[in-house]
Order: sequence, then C-alpha cells, then structure tokens
Amino acid sequence: MYIYSNITGIYVFNQNFEIREKILFDNLETEKLFKINKELENKEILETEKKFIEKFKNIKNLRIENDEKSLSKVFERLNNEKNYFESLYNNNLLLTKEQIKNSINFDNLIIQASSSIDELNKTINILVKRLREWYSYCLPEIEEKIKEHKIFIDLILNKTRADLIKDLDIKNSMGKELQKSDNEQILNLAKTIQLLLKEKEQKEKYLETLIKENCPNLNEIAGFLISGKLISLAGSLKNLAFIPSSTVQLLGAEKALFRHMINKNAKPPKHGIIHEHSLLQKASKENKGKVARALADKILLAAKVDYFKGEFIGDKLKKDLEEKFAEK
Amino acid sequence: MYIYSNITGIYVFNQNFEIREKILFDNLETEKLFKINKELENKEILETEKKFIEKFKNIKNLRIENDEKSLSKVFERLNNEKNYFESLYNNNLLLTKEQIKNSINFDNLIIQASSSIDELNKTINILVKRLREWYSYCLPEIEEKIKEHKIFIDLILNKTRADLIKDLDIKNSMGKELQKSDNEQILNLAKTIQLLLKEKEQKEKYLETLIKENCPNLNEIAGFLISGKLISLAGSLKNLAFIPSSTVQLLGAEKALFRHMINKNAKPPKHGIIHEHSLLQKASKENKGKVARALADKILLAAKVDYFKGEFIGDKLKKDLEEKFAEK
Repeated sequence: MYIYSNITGIYVFNQNFEIREKILFDNLETEKLFKINKELENKEILETEKKFIEKFKNIKNLRIENDEKSLSKVFERLNNEKNYFESLYNNNLLLTKEQIKNSINFDNLIIQASSSIDELNKTINILVKRLREWYSYCLPEIEEKIKEHKIFIDLILNKTRADLIKDLDIKNSMGKELQKSDNEQILNLAKTIQLLLKEKEQKEKYLETLIKENCPNLNEIAGFLISGKLISLAGSLKNLAFIPSSTVQLLGAEKALFRHMINKNAKPPKHGIIHEHSLLQKASKENKGKVARALADKILLAAKVDYFKGEFIGDKLKKDLEEKFAEK
Repeated sequence: MYIYSNITGIYVFNQNFEIREKILFDNLETEKLFKINKELENKEILETEKKFIEKFKNIKNLRIENDEKSLSKVFERLNNEKNYFESLYNNNLLLTKEQIKNSINFDNLIIQASSSIDELNKTINILVKRLREWYSYCLPEIEEKIKEHKIFIDLILNKTRADLIKDLDIKNSMGKELQKSDNEQILNLAKTIQLLLKEKEQKEKYLETLIKENCPNLNEIAGFLISGKLISLAGSLKNLAFIPSSTVQLLGAEKALFRHMINKNAKPPKHGIIHEHSLLQKASKENKGKVARALADKILLAAKVDYFKGEFIGDKLKKDLEEKFAEK
C-alpha cells in the first residue's frame, strides 16, 4: 500500500498501484488549498492525511516513503486517472494566483509611490516649460525673475498682468495683454500644473510614511526620497540588503557605468542615485568618491538591519558618517 | 542744407554738415515711435518732417535725397552728437520690444495649443501606465479587459473592487484588497489623470476654434489636430503656405528622412504627421505614397488660400480628394 498526496488530493494505492481510495481537493477553497500546500511544503503531515493513515493502518505494508521507483508508478497511474490533469492544472493555477496575491507587500507600494513621484516630476517639468513659453506672450520678463515653478504659477494665477508689471517693476514689457479667451487657456494650464504639484506633495507624504514605517534605519541615513529610489532600483528591500556596497554606490548610474565599460575613455561613475544626498552635494570634487563609498556602506548596513527587523541604529550610523566627513 | 531723420529724431544740417536744427523723439511714447518708424519705412514723409521742410524751404539748396557721400557725412556728425548713441540704442530697443509685442498672432496661439495637447497626451500616457501598474495590485484582471484609459479611470473611481469583480465576471482574482490608505493613493492618482484628460479636451476645443477661425480651408482638409501640428512644425501658417508640397508631405518625419539620407538602406518615409489623416489610415500599403502626395498637395493649396484670406474652397478640395481615392 502506498499513500501519495499533492495539490489535487490524497491517493492510496494498492501493491499493484491501483487507486484504492482518494480525497480530492477540488471542492476546497483556495485559501484552504494554499494552507494545505504550505503544510505539505513544510513536510508536516496533513490532518486529513493523518486520518487517512489512521483508516489504513490495519492494512499491512502501508508505505508512505516516496522512493523513486514507486513514485514513478504512482504518477503513471495518476495520469490515467480521469480529470487528474485538469485538477492539477486548475489547483496549481489557483495556488499561483494566491501566491501572487500574497506577494504584494510594502516593497511594491514603495516602488509605486517612488516611481509616481518621479513621473509626476517629469510631467510637471514638461507642462511648466509649456506654460512659461505660453505666458511669455503676456509678460516675457517674468521668466527671468521667477525661477521657482510653484511661485511662478501662484503669481500668474493670483495677480493680474498689470499687478505683476507693477510688483516686479517691469518697464516696457515685450508682451501684450491677450484676449480673455486666450488668457484663460494659459491660466487653466497653470491650475492643472498646480494640481499636479499637490498630487506630488501627497505622494511624497505617503512615501515618507511607508519608508519610516518599514525602513526606519534607511530613512535616517538616506532620507525617504533616496530610500524609495534605492528600493525601486534594487527591486525590493531584500534585494537592496543583499547586493554589494559597490553596487549600492552605483545604483541608478548604470548608463554611465556601461559607457565606461564599453569605452575606457569615458570616466567611471562615482555614484548613482545617492548623489542626491546632502553629504555628497556638500563634498568637494576630489572627496566625492570617498564619501560615496562610505555612504553606500552605511546605507547597506541600514538596509540589512531594516530587512531583518533589527533595532534602530540609524541615528548612530548617521552620526558616524557626519563626524567622519565633518572636518574634511 | 540736408535733412535726415531716423528713430532718434529729425536733424537739419548745413552745408558743412553741422546740425542746425533737430527734433528728438526721446519723449515720444513707444506707440508713436512705432508709427513713425512704420511711416519712415513706407517712405512717406512724416507730418513733423513736412513742417520742418516748410520751415526750411526758404533756405536754398535744401536737399532731402540721401546720396551715399552726404549720408556718411551726416553719420559722422551725428556720432559726435552727445547722447545720440544712447538715444539710438534706447529707441531701437523700445521699437524692437514693440515689434516683438506685435508679432504675437494666431500662429503663436495655435502652436502653443497644439504643443500643449501633444504634451498633455504624453503626460497622461506616463501617468496612466503608472496607474494601471499600481491598480493591478488590487485587480490585475481589469488591465486586459479595459483598454480605453478614460473608461478604466471612470470604472475604478466609481466602482468598488467587489462591484468590478462582479460586473466584469472575474474569478479568483490575483489581486488583493489594499488597505484604505494605500488604495486612496491610487484613486487620487486616477483623479489627477482625469483632470488632465479634461484639460486636454478643453485645449482641443480651443485649438479647434482657433483653426476654424484662421484656417477654415486647412481645417476642412486636414482636421484641426493635424492642421495645428502642421502649423507648429512649419512655424507659422505663412511658412506652411510657402514650402513645397513634398515638404508638407514629410513634415514630422524628419528623423526617418535623415536616417534615409545617411543610410540608403533605410527606406525613405512616405509621410510625416499627415499619416494620422483618415484617408491615409484607410489607404492600402501600396497606395499610401500616392494618397500622401495628393493630400499634401491639397493641404498646401488650402494653406495658401487661408494665408491670403481667399474664399472657402475647402469643401471642394475635400470632395476632389475623396472622389479620387474612393474607387481605389
């Protein structure tokens, strides 16, 4: 006697490998199936299986070990079983779907939030460029005076052209008052960009919450924006925690790296996305490589601690870094 | 005696080219200055100049013709005049500013409207891609079923996940219900894209009005979207009206054209932006070149008529085209 179980059910075979008894999982709910599969994976004996064995324990020669020869016989027999393949296929599909469903975690949310911030930035830049060009028909002189997009938009939305000319002390403007209907189009575009800016702010707050909650150490060292980008580039916090420090240093500089690998005359990049970090922004040109290496080290350490849910050491790591590069 | 006038003023010189009398334009308003300049360009004698001549008509040998020799003497003398250069510079600047101001016309507005539609499309595509990926954590099955972005956004904004599963008959979804705060972020992004779609619609209406008003013939042949793009690519309706028909055919296909010019193996492009036209969309592959040529011809004709404010012949041109390619 042999007993064999997989995601389709539990089967008992006699010595000639004919099915004597079976429990099919067809009618089980996906969730249960998933649980069963997990238990099988853990090599624990299923409750149902236990009962089965109970039932057949009087039968002599019941074998539950899976030697290769008897397994191949089992499979051969199962393949002749009506609906076996269909059941195997369907239950596998259900199981895979369930696994996909359960694979969604904070990593995915961080990646989406971080990427959406990047993309909102990109779209805002495209549209602001258009807005500024369009508005320059009214008042081209404002372009030079107001560099900050948010302030530019607030100004043109809240002040009339005449007010702006007065406030900004513009003489003999090269622009002219457009017709109301034409001007409206410009202001509507400005309003749309204003909403995009608000949406970006909201996404930044959301990302900050996610990062602070799931990677407090990384957040302390790198800030939530860079942390989000690092996790996006690595694919997950787990991936980030297990790549070499030199890779962390260059994440996001892949283009420059490949350019260097193909053409040795092109300089190797010193840093990827971490160049946005304030320590690197402050560092002198000859110091950048050194700072980038040290920063990448600490980031990796922080990611490892966060991944293994270790204690908060971010403040210590940050202090180390700051002290190291304070005098230089 | 010589009389000479430019944007700085009117000068009367004696036979030794010494300034005897002058009227400076320093205090004139820009608008007046612009008018004067226009009149000088038209070689009409200025009212002020007339009076001047009146005053000096008793003086014998008054010359107003500008022979080269006497002109150079005049310039030599003026250069020694105090403040002359400053006045020339300032008045020129005012005049240029005024000319820039007056150069803004419907062409510019069409270009801005058309480009903003292009850019709104681009940004909507970037953000919709993000939205669809993000929403797929909840309900990945919707991606395949709803291809139209607008409908997709309306659905996820107005229906709950449970409703959608029911309505779209989705079984065993691979997605899972996200937490409320996570889900909110997705819906907010959807709302933002919805606003961008509305903004695009508004800009399209505006462009349509501009094109219909200023280029009714072009609009009839090519539609307002293609007309806007053609004017943007050419730089103005005037430019469009004066380029060869073969260039009209290829406007917007510059990359493909240069690729062909550099590498003869690359096929020459048959059409640029006009490929979006319904006639070309319908044409068979071997017919596309022929249709593109005929369409470009009619577009050019329509642009010329529009530029010279001719009568409306768009319907006739359109009928010709449609009849020509109806049987094929």
